[in-house]
Amino acid sequence: MEPRLDLLTVAVPDLDAARRFYVEGLGWAPALDVPGEIVFLQIGRGLLLGLFGAADLAADMEVPAEAVVPGGGFTLAHNVEGPGAVREVFADAVAAGARPLKEPQEAAFGGFHAYFADPAGIRWEVAHNPGWRVDPDGTVHIGAVEG
Amino acid sequence: MEPRLDLLTVAVPDLDAARRFYVEGLGWAPALDVPGEIVFLQIGRGLLLGLFGAADLAADMEVPAEAVVPGGGFTLAHNVEGPGAVREVFADAVAAGARPLKEPQEAAFGGFHAYFADPAGIRWEVAHNPGWRVDPDGTVHIGAVEG
Repeated sequence: MEPRLDLLTVAVPDLDAARRFYVEGLGWAPALDVPGEIVFLQIGRGLLLGLFGAADLAADMEVPAEAVVPGGGFTLAHNVEGPGAVREVFADAVAAGARPLKEPQEAAFGGFHAYFADPAGIRWEVAHNPGWRVDPDGTVHIGAVEG
Repeated sequence: MEPRLDLLTVAVPDLDAARRFYVEGLGWAPALDVPGEIVFLQIGRGLLLGLFGAADLAADMEVPAEAVVPGGGFTLAHNVEGPGAVREVFADAVAAGARPLKEPQEAAFGGFHAYFADPAGIRWEVAHNPGWRVDPDGTVHIGAVEG
């Protein structure tokens, strides 16, 4: 199995609320929108984010509905150029309907970050990480993390 | 906020078990490995997967520990070229220590897929999707999903 992610599907309790936040609130254009079923958003080269009803995702995976907890055990990170950009993106997201989790502040890894939750409870970190560098071919270099 | 994911951090109950599966089992080389803290794996252009202890992730987000449920409400998808490759990758993952969730089979979207869970309970879909196409610049085109 190659180390490659093509699609990240996140369970949402309310597809219309999720669409409102990402499409209307943040202004992200869907790659595909199937009302009542699923919304796909492009979030990287060759990479889509799928917004999918929690019950639908459980059914597709053939796991019990209670095994799919929206928000659950992950966080999505969006890197920006500096502390000012962290504050701006955080404020924009909150204005679009996100719930603040951690106000913009110095981060343990040596940068600056903030966390918010989208209407489905999915957590995003907005981060400025001086130790993060991406080569032209997409290879990521990341400095040692301070505990 | 631009539509871009840089880092997907997933909560794991046992970092050493997660490392064994991805690094030793699947053979993915870490972009950075900080024993006892975090393992970063490159899973796309400019994109890292972070394996992070569930308690550490909760602390970093400043949310209660019980709000971080490993596996939770998402699934990661890995696309391959055909049904045969779905079977091969699924078998390789199971041999590396994954738990089968859904055996390789025809998928509702018109392709072929399978699901497994890694040792942390994180679900991966291995899929062949004839309606998925990626332009040289990384733009994804995806056909309408059949319900």
